[in-house]
This record gives sequence, structure tokens and C-alpha cells, in this order.
Amino acid sequence: MRLTRDNINQHVVRAEYAVRGELAVKSEEYRALLKNGDNSLPFDQVISANIGNPQQLDQKPITFFRQVLSLLENPELLKKEDVLINGLGYKTDVIERAKWLLKQVGSVGAYSASAGAPAIKESIAAFLERRDGFPADPSKIYLSTGASSGVNTLLHVICADKNSGIMIPIPQYPLYTATLSLLDAQAVPYYLDESKSWGTSFETIKAAYEKGKADGLDVRCIVIINPGNPTGASLSEEDVRSVIDFAREENLVIMADEVYQTNVFVGQFHSFKGVLRKLQKENPGKYDGVELASLHSISKGMVGECGHRGGYFELVGFNAEVEAQIYKFVSIMLCAPVIGQCLVELMVNPPKVGEPSYELYNKEYSGIHEGLRERATALHKAFSQMEGVECAEPQGAMYLFPTIQLPAKAHEAAAAEKRTADEFYCMKLLEATGVCLVPGSGFGQKEGTLHFRTTFLAPGTEWVAGIVKFHKEFMDKYR
Amino acid sequence: MRLTRDNINQHVVRAEYAVRGELAVKSEEYRALLKNGDNSLPFDQVISANIGNPQQLDQKPITFFRQVLSLLENPELLKKEDVLINGLGYKTDVIERAKWLLKQVGSVGAYSASAGAPAIKESIAAFLERRDGFPADPSKIYLSTGASSGVNTLLHVICADKNSGIMIPIPQYPLYTATLSLLDAQAVPYYLDESKSWGTSFETIKAAYEKGKADGLDVRCIVIINPGNPTGASLSEEDVRSVIDFAREENLVIMADEVYQTNVFVGQFHSFKGVLRKLQKENPGKYDGVELASLHSISKGMVGECGHRGGYFELVGFNAEVEAQIYKFVSIMLCAPVIGQCLVELMVNPPKVGEPSYELYNKEYSGIHEGLRERATALHKAFSQMEGVECAEPQGAMYLFPTIQLPAKAHEAAAAEKRTADEFYCMKLLEATGVCLVPGSGFGQKEGTLHFRTTFLAPGTEWVAGIVKFHKEFMDKYR
Repeated sequence: MRLTRDNINQHVVRAEYAVRGELAVKSEEYRALLKNGDNSLPFDQVISANIGNPQQLDQKPITFFRQVLSLLENPELLKKEDVLINGLGYKTDVIERAKWLLKQVGSVGAYSASAGAPAIKESIAAFLERRDGFPADPSKIYLSTGASSGVNTLLHVICADKNSGIMIPIPQYPLYTATLSLLDAQAVPYYLDESKSWGTSFETIKAAYEKGKADGLDVRCIVIINPGNPTGASLSEEDVRSVIDFAREENLVIMADEVYQTNVFVGQFHSFKGVLRKLQKENPGKYDGVELASLHSISKGMVGECGHRGGYFELVGFNAEVEAQIYKFVSIMLCAPVIGQCLVELMVNPPKVGEPSYELYNKEYSGIHEGLRERATALHKAFSQMEGVECAEPQGAMYLFPTIQLPAKAHEAAAAEKRTADEFYCMKLLEATGVCLVPGSGFGQKEGTLHFRTTFLAPGTEWVAGIVKFHKEFMDKYR
Repeated sequence: MRLTRDNINQHVVRAEYAVRGELAVKSEEYRALLKNGDNSLPFDQVISANIGNPQQLDQKPITFFRQVLSLLENPELLKKEDVLINGLGYKTDVIERAKWLLKQVGSVGAYSASAGAPAIKESIAAFLERRDGFPADPSKIYLSTGASSGVNTLLHVICADKNSGIMIPIPQYPLYTATLSLLDAQAVPYYLDESKSWGTSFETIKAAYEKGKADGLDVRCIVIINPGNPTGASLSEEDVRSVIDFAREENLVIMADEVYQTNVFVGQFHSFKGVLRKLQKENPGKYDGVELASLHSISKGMVGECGHRGGYFELVGFNAEVEAQIYKFVSIMLCAPVIGQCLVELMVNPPKVGEPSYELYNKEYSGIHEGLRERATALHKAFSQMEGVECAEPQGAMYLFPTIQLPAKAHEAAAAEKRTADEFYCMKLLEATGVCLVPGSGFGQKEGTLHFRTTFLAPGTEWVAGIVKFHKEFMDKYR
């Protein structure tokens, strides 16, 4: 028997992952054509607004981080401190941090312990303590290859069989449903409320849970993405409390995907860990049984180092035997990339006020944050002028997720191509302008609604003008 | 319901991964005790001979590689070429390579294309062409997070259900059986022949296949680890041909784990791809249907950069629709670490004769190779003096896998602790000497035989003397 699509693992065949699907592949083909001097296309660059990939676009890496990493990669440089300082302008804290990290990991070319280098886990715990105002236990922290591999680990352990249900926000980041497909476990969707800036609603979550139970599922876990992907929503403390309360009542594991925790423009970030610890303090005993896994990464935020594939998750309230299984699972893949682990350490423990690298670090960090806010605002403004497009004000993450209404003829034309209308729209946009978005159907959306997701990472305003112009022509054509 | 060992994914619970199991965890505890100044232990250092982790022990990274990586991590340094050259001694080819790689990947902090940066895939294809004397197609190459994630990808796609059987050499690297446990697919074990330096035997493979079929399994694939882990065996061209012939006759996918391809001390390495292409040339048409996936990584060999988690696999003869599913699967995890991808590029395209960095590169590379051979020989010599121990001469990889015969009393003492005798032996060795080995039962061994695996990476002879002394005392105690 030779392998064919029909006889291989059908859970893989069924998995959907639109962020890097047909549109993304086509956009890469266009990019290659342009690179090879093709000038038959109606645009001269491809804008990958489909992926939260900051450094592919305009975002510069933080100088302090990369200076330290350069020393970790070539420790021989540490023998020439005078050249580093006087010739290259490295500050003493860069050199000290590199020496400290090397002492902890030995070589970045060596495997670390399976769950990550112990000293880096301690640094993360100290960060969590500062962030939340409650202690964190390094032995409950697991370094991962980006947050994605953390999600993969947790879902693999939590889902027992095809009857296991995991509550997933809709719209969602499709890693969740794709991984559940691979595991042949079930997504129990709960819709976010677009009319309330894509917030969570206790009633909606409860109704979705009841439906899952009524369908015979063993609902085990609720996933929250906060700030939201693709929605950009940032949850209030009230919202976080109500999710924890619900999870407590129904004995659900909470999986809090908090990779956008520093990408917040409105209000402030409330970590699930922090709010849970507060609830535990306010109500002795009541919340002791809550199981929480929260994830973070170096891929997003002002760090934006997704190519380095670094991240971690922290467990709270898990049974020790279950933790042992999680440990075994991560050990099979040996360890997360060690240079990525070091970058996690730098992210959670950046230069402090008064240290030599602080001023530049702070300038770069604030500049990126401000730049993201400006771009989000400009993009939001453009969308609000477009016919049939509505878009919530940018709150967080790296995305806008406007809703679009397309004429009946556009729906017909899409159906003729066996596409959903939003896919059709995004494909036409890509063909006309070189701008790659992800259609809302890739994340899930309420029936009868259409959306697209765009990052607001790309520089300049030309591409935004291109979308506005395309949209007008598209609407005119299919009106 | 709260998560417990009994209600989580039982495929995870059942997976076994001894390389980082109880012994490894205990050895890390000892290491932490020693680090904290504890002097109650009968040894003053822990020797991790359980993991092929070259740079944790004595192996130094290759200077050219790390100099290039330092520039990739901090491209600002490229603005100060005079300091790099005159102050730090970087050669011009280091600078040129870094510039070229940065041009290809943009930033090492950005995601690459899902299957890896196109230019790096082209470099790998050129390397395969030089190595094998036959062309390689970059579009059939997938960068991975070490070879482990490549194995994970391939097994996920190939195994359809619990009836799928994968032929695994015994002894094996336990990644294979652990991953099959996770997938609830079946290992079809075939024993390597210890009496013939752990080579493959056509008859044994055929018998194992027939048994798998008789058990009702849909046997789909044969895994070969060459050079062998844990055995260190290096297959002859004849052996490789006979595996390909068998796979062709029975329509099995060949998965060739070739991560130790440069760790060869006796004879030479014969790649499955090269031998397959030769067979295809010699017998037009006959071998066209053979499906081969071969894997390589930066973790082993003279590179030894396992902490960077880089690797790739190449597909030959796969159906295009199956390739599309493999592509989708890797895209869900976004991409392999980009700095690791760059290190793959450096590995497959090192400095050439006449280039400024060649001399040092060659000296370092040969020095590591020679050092490994010397250590392997010394260790082999020590084992051959030990009572009840037999060990094949070192041929390749980074391991020796001696067979041991223990007295009946040792078996009884082990059973009293609910351990296998080899586990018991390795645990006592660790407690007495701080040397961590992996018992043969972690890899699989013929019933009634006992082995252990040790790397020959640790420097010095003291730890070897420690094993010899322990062994004598152990034998005296239990005789």
C-alpha cells in the first residue's frame, strides 16, 4: 500500500489551519515572482498582514536582547571585553547578563533540562510574582517552543478520547481546533460578543457548556485568549472573575492564552493567575480546586521574536501525577530551544531603571508600543470609512477583526468558486493588491456574518489605501 | 471532574521515555545538591552519560558557526566590520555568510515559511547532491525542530489508526515507541543482531513483518536508525540495499533516521537516499514506487548543537496530496526555530578549502572526530576488562551498548525493588558514582539479555575508572 490522502491519518487530513493555508501559500508564490523580477502583477510588494510576524515587517528587535544573544552564541567574545565596550558599545549589564546566562545553561548548544533551565524558570517565577503580587513556583513552570507547543502539550494530556470536550472561543486562533482535530477530541464553541467589543458573556459560556453536556461530551477545559486573537479584545477583571467562577463550578481546567499580555491599548491586562490568587485570598478554601494553565511567549508584544520559538506555561492546582505526565510528554521532545529560553529570561527580566541599558531599552520598548497603537488607529480609521465594514476600536493584541457585509452578487460569485464569501473577498484582495488577510471563516464566526483579520504591523499607509481602493471597486462590481 | 492520572489521555500515560526518566531526574537532583554545596554524596560530580548532549560535556562549538550566529543575532555588528575583523578576529567569510543568511531570512526573530526558509532548503539540496551524487529537490525538504519533531510529524501523518504498524529496530531510540504510544499505533519490533555488530538481518525483518501481518496489523513503514542508536552500528551498503528491497516488495515507507551520519569510525556512511537513487538508476522503473523519508539534524556529529533544535527531513516518492498534509501539519506549529535553521545551513555548507575560515574549521572538526574515537576506544577497552560484560567495537554514533550478565542474587534484589536487573544496576551505579547511564530495557533488548547505554562524550578517564570499580564491588556483593 502506498500512502494517499485517503489512507493516512484522517485526523490530520481534517485539521484546518487557515493562517498558513491557501491564501498564505499563494502570497508566498507572489513574493517569489516579485523577487525574481516578474512585473506582470498589479502590485510591487506582498504585505503579509495574515500572520503576527512583527520582525518580518517593520518591528526592530530590542537592542539589549540581541546584544546578549550575540554573546551567548559566541562566548569567545567575552574574552575581549574592551572591544565589546569600546569598539562595539556594549554596556556592562549586557556582558554581565550574558555571563550569568552562560553560567546557568553551560552552552546554548546543549540540551537543557526537559522543562527548561532551572535558573530561567526561577526568573520567570520572579516576574510572575512582580506582575501578580503573589508568589510563583518555578517547579510549575515549563519552557516551550513558542506558546504553540505549550498548547499542544496541554491539550494532549487533557483530552482523554473523542468524548473529551474543550471550550473554545469563537472566533479563535485555529491552533486550538486544529490540535483538537489531530487528537480527535471535540471543540465546544462559545461565541464572543461582537456587540460588547468581543468580550465573554457568562450566559453564552454557560449555554455552550450545557449544549456540550447535552451532546454527551465530557467537557474538561475552557480556553480563553486574552487579549484576544483574532479579536484584539482585552478582558476586564470582572470578565476574568466570571470565567474563573464558572470553571470552578463546573470543574473545568482553565487554559489562559496570554501571549498578547503586553499588547494592550485600552485599560489594563488582568492575568488569570493574579485574579485567581486574589479570589483565593478573598475566599479561603473556595477556589483551591481550580486548575489553571497560563501561557506566554516571546513571539508577540514589544519583543516580537517569534522566529526564536520561545515561551512557557505555568500550572496552578494541577495534580502531581498529572504534572508528572506533562513532564514526560515534554521530555520526549527533549527541550525547548535554549537560545529561545534565554530570550524568555531577557523578556521577563529586562534592564531596570538605573542600569546602563535601561534608557535605550525603554525608548525602544515604548516606541514599538506607540507605533503599534498609531497603526492600529490609522487602520481602524480607514476601515470605518469603508462601505459595509464595521470595526471595534483597537483594544489589544496585533489584530483588527472587522465585520463586512458583501452584496448578494459577491456571495453568488464566491459560491460559483466553491468558496465562502469572505475567502472570495480575501483572495480577490490578494490578487489585486498583494495584501494577504485571513478570512473570518478561518477563525470561526457567527453564521450569517463575515469578517477578516488583519495585523496592524505593516508600516506605511499605502497598503491601507490599497485596501480602501480595492474595497470600493469590489463593492461597485458586485453591487 | 479534576484531572488525575486515571482520567487524562492514557496514551500519554502509557508512553515510556527512559532517556529522561527516573534515573535522569535523580541525577539532576544530585547535580543540584552538589551545586548547593552538599558533600554527603560519595562523588563530587554527576556524569550525564545518559544523553547524547555533546556541549554539556566537553565538546566545543565550531568557531565559524558561532561567529556567524553571533552576527545573525545582532546584525548591528555588521556596521562595524573593522572592529569585527581587527578587534575580534572575524574572517571575511564569516561576515559574508551572515549577510547572505540575513538577506534570506530577514530577521532570525521572524517566522520563516512553514517548511523552512527557501534558501536554506536550497543549500540542503545542494549538500545532498554533493553527498549522494544525485540531485535533490528543495521543495521536498522540511526544516524541523531537531530530528525529533520531524519523526513526530512523519509518524502523525503515516499512522492512520490503532491498526497501523510501524517496524522499529530493537534496541531503538525510545522516541519511536513513545510517539507510537501517543498515537495509539503499533510498534512492530524487529531485532538487530548483536552477534553481527548489531546489523540488520533480512530474515529477521521479514519474520517480524510476517508476525505483524499475522497479528492483523496494517504494517506501513520501517524505521532504520543508521548509524544506530543505542547500538552505534553502521550499516553496510549491502544492508541498506536489502532494507530498500524489502520495503519495495512490501510497499513500506522507509524512515531513515540518519542523525549520526558523520559519527562513523569504521567503514563509511551509506545514505538511504543515495543507495535508493543508485538502485533506481541500475534498475529503471523497478524502484520508482519506493517512499523514503530521511532525517538529519544539527544535534549530533561534530556539530553537536542539540540545544539549538535544528534538523530537516527529505521526502522521496511521496504522493503530492500526502506532502500537502505534511506541509499543513508542520504549519500548525508555524516553523522551526530560525536560528536553528541557519545552523543547519552552516552545517551543510561549511567553509571550503581555501576560504579564510577553512583551516580552523577543519582543525576543530577533525579534532572532535578524533577525540570521540579515542574516548570510544578507551571506554571499550575498560568494558572489555569487566567481568560479565561484552561490548562490540565502536563503529559509530556516540554510544556503546554493552551486554552485561549479572548474578542471580542481583536479579533477586532488583525484583525486590520492583525493578528490572539492568535498571537496578544503573540506579546503584548512579548512587555510588554519580555516573548516569540508561538501562537496556529503555531501548528494548532480547528477553533474557541485559545491557546499558553510555555515551562516550564525557572527558577524562576518572569516571570510567569509577564504573570499573563499582562493577567489581557490585559483582562481589551479589555473586
